[in-house]
Amino acid sequence: MGVREAGAGGKVTITEIARQAGVSVPTVSRVVNGRSDVSPQTRARVEDLLHRHGYRRRPAAPGNRAALLDLVFDDLDSPWAVEIIRGVEEVAHAEGIGTVVSAVHGRSGDARAWMRNLRARASDGVVLVTSALDATLHEELRILGVPLVVVDPAGSPSPGAPTIGAANWSGGLAATEHLLSLGHRRIGLIAGPPGLLCSRARLDGYRAALEGAGLTPDASLIVTGDFRPESGFTACATLLDLPEPPTALFAAGDRMALGAIEALRRRGLRVPQDMSVVGFDDLPEVRWSSPPLTTVRQPLADMGRLAVRTALGLTRDEQPDSPRVELGTDLVVRASTAPPG
Amino acid sequence: MGVREAGAGGKVTITEIARQAGVSVPTVSRVVNGRSDVSPQTRARVEDLLHRHGYRRRPAAPGNRAALLDLVFDDLDSPWAVEIIRGVEEVAHAEGIGTVVSAVHGRSGDARAWMRNLRARASDGVVLVTSALDATLHEELRILGVPLVVVDPAGSPSPGAPTIGAANWSGGLAATEHLLSLGHRRIGLIAGPPGLLCSRARLDGYRAALEGAGLTPDASLIVTGDFRPESGFTACATLLDLPEPPTALFAAGDRMALGAIEALRRRGLRVPQDMSVVGFDDLPEVRWSSPPLTTVRQPLADMGRLAVRTALGLTRDEQPDSPRVELGTDLVVRASTAPPG
Repeated sequence: MGVREAGAGGKVTITEIARQAGVSVPTVSRVVNGRSDVSPQTRARVEDLLHRHGYRRRPAAPGNRAALLDLVFDDLDSPWAVEIIRGVEEVAHAEGIGTVVSAVHGRSGDARAWMRNLRARASDGVVLVTSALDATLHEELRILGVPLVVVDPAGSPSPGAPTIGAANWSGGLAATEHLLSLGHRRIGLIAGPPGLLCSRARLDGYRAALEGAGLTPDASLIVTGDFRPESGFTACATLLDLPEPPTALFAAGDRMALGAIEALRRRGLRVPQDMSVVGFDDLPEVRWSSPPLTTVRQPLADMGRLAVRTALGLTRDEQPDSPRVELGTDLVVRASTAPPG
Repeated sequence: MGVREAGAGGKVTITEIARQAGVSVPTVSRVVNGRSDVSPQTRARVEDLLHRHGYRRRPAAPGNRAALLDLVFDDLDSPWAVEIIRGVEEVAHAEGIGTVVSAVHGRSGDARAWMRNLRARASDGVVLVTSALDATLHEELRILGVPLVVVDPAGSPSPGAPTIGAANWSGGLAATEHLLSLGHRRIGLIAGPPGLLCSRARLDGYRAALEGAGLTPDASLIVTGDFRPESGFTACATLLDLPEPPTALFAAGDRMALGAIEALRRRGLRVPQDMSVVGFDDLPEVRWSSPPLTTVRQPLADMGRLAVRTALGLTRDEQPDSPRVELGTDLVVRASTAPPG
């Protein structure tokens, strides 16, 4: 990225900071970019001056080029994608920053190509959605000094960068408590992939709600899916084939809930009369599923907005309040849940 | 955008063209950028030289910056958006070009701000989705010399730029012929907004299919919506309240079809046993609507891909084969259609 001198709106230039600190401009640059090859004393002196002068790396690039922010997904066919893009673009646009959207498809070749382009376009920050890059590329970004923020609806473990996620455990708890409050006692769970933290958190929220109601979770009522509708379809069929099927389902992802509803329809079972279904995500499409889905809302656009603000803060050397922020989830009650028939 | 000299891969520089034509470099620049302030004779001489030398404006910007392509939507909450982004990003990424995604919300202030940013970031091309910019901004883009391609699933009238659309009339015909082939004779239409060409084309396709089957279209079976699910819900209710309701519906947009299915469910009517429903779009979500929707597929990602290729062609002064391309639509038969009950 290189060093940016404060522009017309700024108070002081890097050259002036260097003069006052009695060091070279490249040294100030190294401090600004968080490089390690600066002595602690020099770093402290320079940071003090930067701070006192209210120095801001401005989110704008060499010459007259407008600033850019890179938004990177594994895949753009995720239904999350457009919600997150919407939030990111809204804040970036208001700041005069262009949002460059990329997908790396979990392929290291694509990720390397993206990294080369990122260098060439001198992007001012990166918002990464879930685990789109491997550790090597994270390290490269760190060395480039490009601020990185991870938006992670899946709550996967993240390597060092500030992360914006959702309150998965609370969401799992709220979904299950809603079904309990309607009078359900046999509640099936279609869980997410066990390797993801979000799956574990939602499962634990489900268990906590059952235990809070004095019930012992029944392992046969927990079936694992992979967040795709097909897996919800299959998991629902498995639960319906139990000797004593559940009267309600919590699908830990909206698309699995849609698959489950289709499995019920195929067997001539009605939602919610014969089976209540709660999802997780509140994707735009489930407002008009048939019936409209009761679900746990993840504020994906808000997560995108906060990610941009956090990344812009980092370009001004403002550290976020917490390296890991979880935005609240809300239960949205629609037409797919009712008391047991 | 300014003039680009051919880089390492190019054959000849602008300076060389100017020398051979006996004109100044700015004059060559004016020809390259399609400006009108050049005499016809000079233009012809310069264009001939450019052509003979295989001169290409390279899709890369001043300095080492990687190339950028701007993709502009009215709104990012359109369910089309992510499909088009996916197609555009795929081709752009493969070419090493960053895709800058923006939404202008039909607000001229946002569009002006975007235009300022576009200038500042020296974008190499613009892919516009539907009618996101007014005529003034179209004119500004023309003067800037930035290649513009319009992706227009709605088939609205477009001012001068090459347009990639979908075969709306053929789609309306195929949807209605499918219902006729199942034995339906009273087929309702939930039409799109009358001001859009796509609405008119789908309506005409519906009428042509009925007339082809020897039926006279019944005006009471045609109700207008606005592409949103709510309007499909209301239109379906209107059709069900007719003295003699239809046995099948063609909703000229998937989201209106989803609203119609919900209206049917609320009245205890089953799809397809009590009413067949065909949509238009094939949005990803309707594969898992309940029941999965029979619909007319618009190849949105392909439209995005072709738009980028066309824009890149324009940066090399390659005109598209036709200023208006319509990609084919296909009927996708799923579970929402059956013979009349």
